[in-house]
Amino acid sequence: MSNKIRVIQYGVGPIGARVVRLMLEKPSLEIIGAIDTDPEKVGKDLGAVAGANRNTGVLVSADAKSVLHSGADVVLHTTSSYLRHVADQLIACVEAGLHVVSTCEELSYPFRKYPELSARLDQCARENKVAMLGTGVNPGFAMDKLVLTLATACHRVDKVEVHRIVNASKRRQPLQKKVGSGLTVDQFYAQRDAGIIKHHGLPESTAMIADSLGLQVDRIEETIEPVIAKTMVKTDFFEVPPGRVVGVHQVARGLASEAANIHLELQMYLDAPDPIDAVKITGVPGLELQVPGGIHGDYATAAVAVNCVPAILEAKPGLRTSKDIPMCYLPGIV
Amino acid sequence: MSNKIRVIQYGVGPIGARVVRLMLEKPSLEIIGAIDTDPEKVGKDLGAVAGANRNTGVLVSADAKSVLHSGADVVLHTTSSYLRHVADQLIACVEAGLHVVSTCEELSYPFRKYPELSARLDQCARENKVAMLGTGVNPGFAMDKLVLTLATACHRVDKVEVHRIVNASKRRQPLQKKVGSGLTVDQFYAQRDAGIIKHHGLPESTAMIADSLGLQVDRIEETIEPVIAKTMVKTDFFEVPPGRVVGVHQVARGLASEAANIHLELQMYLDAPDPIDAVKITGVPGLELQVPGGIHGDYATAAVAVNCVPAILEAKPGLRTSKDIPMCYLPGIV
Repeated sequence: MSNKIRVIQYGVGPIGARVVRLMLEKPSLEIIGAIDTDPEKVGKDLGAVAGANRNTGVLVSADAKSVLHSGADVVLHTTSSYLRHVADQLIACVEAGLHVVSTCEELSYPFRKYPELSARLDQCARENKVAMLGTGVNPGFAMDKLVLTLATACHRVDKVEVHRIVNASKRRQPLQKKVGSGLTVDQFYAQRDAGIIKHHGLPESTAMIADSLGLQVDRIEETIEPVIAKTMVKTDFFEVPPGRVVGVHQVARGLASEAANIHLELQMYLDAPDPIDAVKITGVPGLELQVPGGIHGDYATAAVAVNCVPAILEAKPGLRTSKDIPMCYLPGIV
Repeated sequence: MSNKIRVIQYGVGPIGARVVRLMLEKPSLEIIGAIDTDPEKVGKDLGAVAGANRNTGVLVSADAKSVLHSGADVVLHTTSSYLRHVADQLIACVEAGLHVVSTCEELSYPFRKYPELSARLDQCARENKVAMLGTGVNPGFAMDKLVLTLATACHRVDKVEVHRIVNASKRRQPLQKKVGSGLTVDQFYAQRDAGIIKHHGLPESTAMIADSLGLQVDRIEETIEPVIAKTMVKTDFFEVPPGRVVGVHQVARGLASEAANIHLELQMYLDAPDPIDAVKITGVPGLELQVPGGIHGDYATAAVAVNCVPAILEAKPGLRTSKDIPMCYLPGIV
């Protein structure tokens, strides 16, 4: 019998496909099942569906229940950003006795926004003696886990600022679209107000930082504004004339009275000239951390989720977050 | 009954004193005992011995055994860099049923240098259902934990380089002395060859990175060379004329055949102009991380050790390392 960790892939969209291709490079992981409801994918080999260069012997199935009871250890779950949409999926995984690593952004730190649902997921995981984790690059890593890790070197933490600037020109087409590329300003605001344009996770990261570092945050405010093209911007997928939208500028602030103890700022737009992840901790001592060029989101969400698989097996049962997980790279095929 | 974590401070030297002062700022920790053999310290209040601005009600005792059996949860151990010197102390802690966080550099990742002793410590901790951790800024954080954390965002890791440049002028006198300040080059080499001049921990960090990231490292080589003053250098404690030593330049390389898959470079010298902690991962994607100004060692060793106290209570019994611990700041008094 193999002593590999047996994984089920739940959701084979763009992120799930990347996750699958990465897991195929990890000798300690074995994919034993895959779930997706898309008729175009059901019945096909997971390798083909995920764009891997080989077959896996695993066929994509729409029958979640039977796949979840096929003897795995962990579910790698990549179906939606919205916790309410996936709560039943997550509970089904846990009730099948499976640990869960999910890229659902709202699962990354759901305690403030969904206190009752969080308690229910936590209890369900505890009862089934498994751990559940929502993670990815952001939320889950660049704007929270890196902050908490750096803060370990501090005697006192008074304030946290994080800036993440992403050059959307280097990202896949759906992301370029998601940030509003090519829209008029009015169209942007209409889509923002309809909840279509929004990167999920800044309030979750803010809450994780506040609760972990003991920074007072009584309320979290979030703003979403367009970044406007000053000159013609061309990518592989979009041509945006001056005055139109090239991306999104999103700010979350964790406030106590009127002071922002936490300030998270995300800019994702086409041709952003200086992509970076930058953390600034005001405290004793103050500390700054920078990742010049920034952490590539498409890569890193898959990487963080896959690399956390071994740690979730060791985690305390219940609903865990990136804070609780000792993060590390999982060695690949040499 | 208090639900604070009850801590014993084992060793009240310069690092131990900092640790004590920091623990007094943490409402979740309660110091209930202190051990030191220095007759100047025994019988005095720990607050006075540690240079805190208040008494603690805890008297420093040389009777380790009775202190260790006084009903604590964790020992914070800061007595020596050498694992062989402290092995009996660590075993006494563990046999008293206490978790241990130690700043002993050689404990940070002892498996390659002391395989038998590591196995013995691990077994002893497991038998007593407690966890033991060696950590601090370096080894334990700046040149290893930060690397592993950053690598979580990678699909593949091929090579790791870390540069840590410390401006020793901003550090305490013992550190300025320890790096050889004011010596002639001949004196430096004599003290190096006698094992007096040496920052402990680079081979430990190299081994931790190699084993964690699956980088092949068949042997670890370390070099220790002087940094020479080009002009007169003055600090609060030293005046060093040109041609004399202002510090140490230490390199550890993790080698497979002749290739260095891991390169750790530490420069600690007076008036170092651009202190920094810099990590470079060659891989997919390649990633760099920088802490401009660097992580202040005196602060950070105490911070990392104290901040890890809650996590050691949750850790799996046995000999753990920074790799296994989800590192985070422990909130202080607001």
